[in-house]
Amino acid sequence: MYGLHIDRSSPLSITRQLTGQLRGMILNGTLPADTRLPPTRNLAAELFIARNTILQVYEQLIAEGYLSGRTGSGTYVVALGRPGAAPVHDAPERETGGKSGPAEPGDIIAFEAGLTDYRRFPRAAWTRAVRDASIEMPQEKLAFSTPGGEEELRRELCAYLYRTKDITCSPGQIFILPGATSGVDVACWALKGCTIAAMEDPCVHFMRQAFLRNGYQIAPIPVDGQGMRTEKLAGLRELGFIYAVPSHQFPTGTVLPISRRLALLSHARRCGAYIIEDDYDSEFRYEGEPIQTLRHLDPERVIYLGSFSKIFSPTLRMGYMILPWGAVERMQEALESMNLTAPVLLQRALAAFLRSGQLERHIYSMKRLYAKKRALLIRELKHAFGAGIFISGENAGMHVMVVFEKRPLVREDFDRLASCRVDAEWSEDYAFEKGVHKSGLILGYGALTETEIAEGVARLQAALLDM
Amino acid sequence: MYGLHIDRSSPLSITRQLTGQLRGMILNGTLPADTRLPPTRNLAAELFIARNTILQVYEQLIAEGYLSGRTGSGTYVVALGRPGAAPVHDAPERETGGKSGPAEPGDIIAFEAGLTDYRRFPRAAWTRAVRDASIEMPQEKLAFSTPGGEEELRRELCAYLYRTKDITCSPGQIFILPGATSGVDVACWALKGCTIAAMEDPCVHFMRQAFLRNGYQIAPIPVDGQGMRTEKLAGLRELGFIYAVPSHQFPTGTVLPISRRLALLSHARRCGAYIIEDDYDSEFRYEGEPIQTLRHLDPERVIYLGSFSKIFSPTLRMGYMILPWGAVERMQEALESMNLTAPVLLQRALAAFLRSGQLERHIYSMKRLYAKKRALLIRELKHAFGAGIFISGENAGMHVMVVFEKRPLVREDFDRLASCRVDAEWSEDYAFEKGVHKSGLILGYGALTETEIAEGVARLQAALLDM
Repeated sequence: MYGLHIDRSSPLSITRQLTGQLRGMILNGTLPADTRLPPTRNLAAELFIARNTILQVYEQLIAEGYLSGRTGSGTYVVALGRPGAAPVHDAPERETGGKSGPAEPGDIIAFEAGLTDYRRFPRAAWTRAVRDASIEMPQEKLAFSTPGGEEELRRELCAYLYRTKDITCSPGQIFILPGATSGVDVACWALKGCTIAAMEDPCVHFMRQAFLRNGYQIAPIPVDGQGMRTEKLAGLRELGFIYAVPSHQFPTGTVLPISRRLALLSHARRCGAYIIEDDYDSEFRYEGEPIQTLRHLDPERVIYLGSFSKIFSPTLRMGYMILPWGAVERMQEALESMNLTAPVLLQRALAAFLRSGQLERHIYSMKRLYAKKRALLIRELKHAFGAGIFISGENAGMHVMVVFEKRPLVREDFDRLASCRVDAEWSEDYAFEKGVHKSGLILGYGALTETEIAEGVARLQAALLDM
Repeated sequence: MYGLHIDRSSPLSITRQLTGQLRGMILNGTLPADTRLPPTRNLAAELFIARNTILQVYEQLIAEGYLSGRTGSGTYVVALGRPGAAPVHDAPERETGGKSGPAEPGDIIAFEAGLTDYRRFPRAAWTRAVRDASIEMPQEKLAFSTPGGEEELRRELCAYLYRTKDITCSPGQIFILPGATSGVDVACWALKGCTIAAMEDPCVHFMRQAFLRNGYQIAPIPVDGQGMRTEKLAGLRELGFIYAVPSHQFPTGTVLPISRRLALLSHARRCGAYIIEDDYDSEFRYEGEPIQTLRHLDPERVIYLGSFSKIFSPTLRMGYMILPWGAVERMQEALESMNLTAPVLLQRALAAFLRSGQLERHIYSMKRLYAKKRALLIRELKHAFGAGIFISGENAGMHVMVVFEKRPLVREDFDRLASCRVDAEWSEDYAFEKGVHKSGLILGYGALTETEIAEGVARLQAALLDM
């Protein structure tokens, strides 16, 4: 059916092969909008594979916005020229009761986004990797740092990105950075043209600051339940950069559907703008595979930013970018003049950690851990607030955004959180346009224990009794 | 005499005590210009100390521009309102012959400035320090990086700076950076006011780039045999920063005399500008103590930049700044928003390395090594070029500048260097105003062996036969 085929000698999983083929057919029009896909059972039988594999393929393509509908009741190709159907939010039906009463005494429970579970940091293995890297370092590597990073790490990163995210690139396109934010600094300086940058609204502070301190004006593009509202780009003819977080927008956690991804790319091409794709936490995706990157669709238009802060440790201070070939030379020059590299010892230790598979095992084990915490958090939230909330961005990463349906949050609510000894951030504080994102509470759960999560939600409930 | 006194219970050496007291008396006018200081023999007898100690004190103050004259033939206080007497350059009298003929085959010998002798990197001790830091790291230190740096390292650095450079500061004024260049980035953003920066001409490239990419215009201030010609600042009433390398200017290697230091500070005060004092290699001073910093004269006007690249390893990617209290809060905010810190593991390893005295022992041993290389380089240069050159900046650091007296260098000379398989940089390439610095060849010797230095000079001679 549709000429789908399975190559059993390929290093790619069958799920990934089929997902890729269907994506291609939708993008090139072989499968036009509103085409109804065959039931999973039929397709599985035809290809002699497990039905579950087809289910996974459909779910992944639904998550990415290529397909719509619930598997089982009919699956359709989405029209890519216009935004896909809004994802259905389960309106939770559980009782709204739950624990109440004053919070327990003790330390503040902080639902801080972006923190990892540092208690599970693989200290012994990492100590060995760093020690070995130091002992085995070729002498001439002690002489100076290579701008762009150590060849070993760039090579290992290429292989890792292909294995885990299906990203194809060459070591020459990968630049190692002392943190992902620096990537924006280098790009702003090296690729300076028009100094207007479009950014999602709301958006993380330090990326906004990076553009501002490089002399860029910011054009905020509103975000809804499907991420950046790309139709709002239309009026902006002059753009230097579009900064986007399409896999797990911060803080809303939305996934940009394929229709909007295409609109974003086509607008960037029209303006001659580069897209900076920040993919800070997509390794932790709890349903299906990591979302396919924007870069897959146009590697010469997209600067891909990655970080080891979430998948390994924020104390490592290391990130990377994958560059379009057309930008490599200018970025290399800028990096040299900016003297920006990560310490050689840690680069080499990380390369060995990747080579041995230890980083992937760590990510896998953390993903299972975060999945458990996430399930608990969602369960507790639904138990505490019932139909009064919906939860956004729960499919990936280490934070969710809780949207309160009853009333917007106000500054005093955060005083009440503090007096209940619980802390969380307000989506409003990340917004350019004020007043639109008042209902969202950002709950990071990476660093919290299960006990803290349960107790934290109880304190939230105590603080926000009327929700 | 003059009320000089020695405190034998002080942790400061007698040399440093006397140097400090005489500095104070010259600065406050107790010892006015043209005062003739007592002969070293008399002063030593009066204070019951070795004559050599007084010799060291006088030499140090001559190097810093407080005193003039040759010890023995009378030592005078310099008038601080005007530039001190130009330092006497020994016109070498040796024969101009020396080795000639074509260069030996083999690798290119690169007199690259800024490189350390990486063969002598204390790998075993550093491996232990990193391993121990990793094993002993408190768990909560794995959670996130503190902007500004780890408390342990800031404390150890304070103690180190006091022991070795007589710098008094508090850990709260020290910010750890991923390289000294980042300090300029943070300052430009945090302390933005007037966006004109005065810089020495010639000057190192990446610092120039740092100001440019932060939107500053550059006002180049010419450098002569005594460093920045501070009288040229007079016309510049609006300045945000003055970037200066007073201890060992790059590339000329000059030491800014105290008269000009005072002029620099008074101009900075008039403009409300901060001075960024880059002290990249003053630990390696071969005669006397490290030059007293600009910061000593006005800690609230000077941002002091230091680096571990020269004293330890450029692959560590770590530097620091000491801030005026008046700038701490704004800089702290900027650092947080810029997400700029060094890896926690390496910060803690370095703190332990400082605490145990291992870094100072390493610096001491490298200083002896570089002193030997420097002596050899100067000997070979004088042997090869005789009276045709004078050598600038030889008292400190890991490079000298050779100034050819016969004719300026031209681009073709560097082609001839290349064909003789030797490489060196041209001071002209670091200049804003072209044409003025054509005679200087920058010879870094840190990473070269003694054999390479001797062979390298022979190749220079072969390439520049007419000099």
